[in-house]
Amino acid sequence: MAFSYTRTIRLADTDAAGVVFFARTLAICHEAYEEAIASAGIDLRNLLGAADVIVPIAKSEAEYLRPLRVGDKVRIPVVPAALSANAFAIRFEIVKLGPPEKVAARVRTEHVCTSLAKRERVAMPAAVAAWVAAR
Amino acid sequence: MAFSYTRTIRLADTDAAGVVFFARTLAICHEAYEEAIASAGIDLRNLLGAADVIVPIAKSEAEYLRPLRVGDKVRIPVVPAALSANAFAIRFEIVKLGPPEKVAARVRTEHVCTSLAKRERVAMPAAVAAWVAAR
Amino acid sequence: MAFSYTRTIRLADTDAAGVVFFARTLAICHEAYEEAIASAGIDLRNLLGAADVIVPIAKSEAEYLRPLRVGDKVRIPVVPAALSANAFAIRFEIVKLGPPEKVAARVRTEHVCTSLAKRERVAMPAAVAAWVAAR
Amino acid sequence: MAFSYTRTIRLADTDAAGVVFFARTLAICHEAYEEAIASAGIDLRNLLGAADVIVPIAKSEAEYLRPLRVGDKVRIPVVPAALSANAFAIRFEIVKLGPPEKVAARVRTEHVCTSLAKRERVAMPAAVAAWVAAR
Repeated sequence: MAFSYTRTIRLADTDAAGVVFFARTLAICHEAYEEAIASAGIDLRNLLGAADVIVPIAKSEAEYLRPLRVGDKVRIPVVPAALSANAFAIRFEIVKLGPPEKVAARVRTEHVCTSLAKRERVAMPAAVAAWVAAR
Repeated sequence: MAFSYTRTIRLADTDAAGVVFFARTLAICHEAYEEAIASAGIDLRNLLGAADVIVPIAKSEAEYLRPLRVGDKVRIPVVPAALSANAFAIRFEIVKLGPPEKVAARVRTEHVCTSLAKRERVAMPAAVAAWVAAR
Repeated sequence: MAFSYTRTIRLADTDAAGVVFFARTLAICHEAYEEAIASAGIDLRNLLGAADVIVPIAKSEAEYLRPLRVGDKVRIPVVPAALSANAFAIRFEIVKLGPPEKVAARVRTEHVCTSLAKRERVAMPAAVAAWVAAR
Repeated sequence: MAFSYTRTIRLADTDAAGVVFFARTLAICHEAYEEAIASAGIDLRNLLGAADVIVPIAKSEAEYLRPLRVGDKVRIPVVPAALSANAFAIRFEIVKLGPPEKVAARVRTEHVCTSLAKRERVAMPAAVAAWVAAR
């Protein structure tokens, strides 16, 4: 069963159109990713440069299906999948809690494992590979 | 006992110095305020213009005492106090969970109740006054 | 010739990895869109609900090719294209100024004209259609 | 004459109340600071940890006097002043361009020069001291 993150939409997520600013949708999914890997025992700081292998986002795609407003409660399932020995993708849905529940957005990100020392793609760190394989 | 909000520091809260960007500290405290009034049964949307009386922030002060990093867990007690019939202040602390616990920031905001129709200061809505008085 | 927006990368755009946070890349492109339509005489406030037809973003795609750091200067050409009578896409590049110049990101957004009153897709407002056709 | 930074208010600066989110006011002033020190030949990256002395913000105060909306043009004069050998303050005004011009916000920040190696307050770097003294 996929890891899910829950979140309340905050005023700082919204813009003058009264709904979540589109780019904030991706930031909210990144929070879900941070929580998912933390729950798998992975320290995000290692992936940001504390260890040699960083995992930057190479691509993102998003569909914005329904507006989200301040105070809305959302659940975000996080589903990773390997793309190669060096890269993985994550699928997110932002589900507005109900009743009835409705999918407000779908987001997909691609992450490429990169060695800071070698400046090239390298294999996923073991903990990341285990997290990706477990789903 | 004061309402407290708990939160994990997210990558989007940080900047290239490796710690929380100072202005995000205030945004994080506003989340705590949103959660505090929601727990008191107040709908934030009414205070944003859905009802006649809005409650904009007139002043803020902050002391940044210790850096916060991605993954840090914080607890934020929220303590409101009336300033007049029309205005209230809120004191926040951002306490980095330990052990040992340490106060990372102190923030104070002032909120002034304003009628959109009359374009002048008006008395606090009853629900807001009750929330302010209860603490 | 395409409209271009120039911008300096700010500390608030970056995260603890030392580079621009991926979702900020889309926010920076949205600034370029705001400036492009303003330079075409279109008032963004009308597209946010002041007039009946709003133009929400339905999809976004982004490729993050090179890291951007605080102080970097970027140029962002903005190239709209009609998708139908009701919808248009915009292609953005974030070009890091040089020498040598390098493309740091490519972003594409889709915008769907929607009537607030009718709650359905409607034709692009004339000023928007003219802007899209001019490029 | 004080350095001034000009800026257009962007959609991402606003929230669902239709105006600039209070904490973004401080972020906008920080942009003005970044531009002011860059124009004085100071590389912000050095103050973020590339050199030994960092200059974190220890305090901030803000008065939010008038709402700012998307598309508004603002001018932000930046006025530093020494507080001691180790610390300086900056006063900002966010002036909404007119006619008539109106002050929308006043912000003050305090910055304390700190050695990463010594973990204590140290004298301002010469370039920073010169910038502070010149105004």
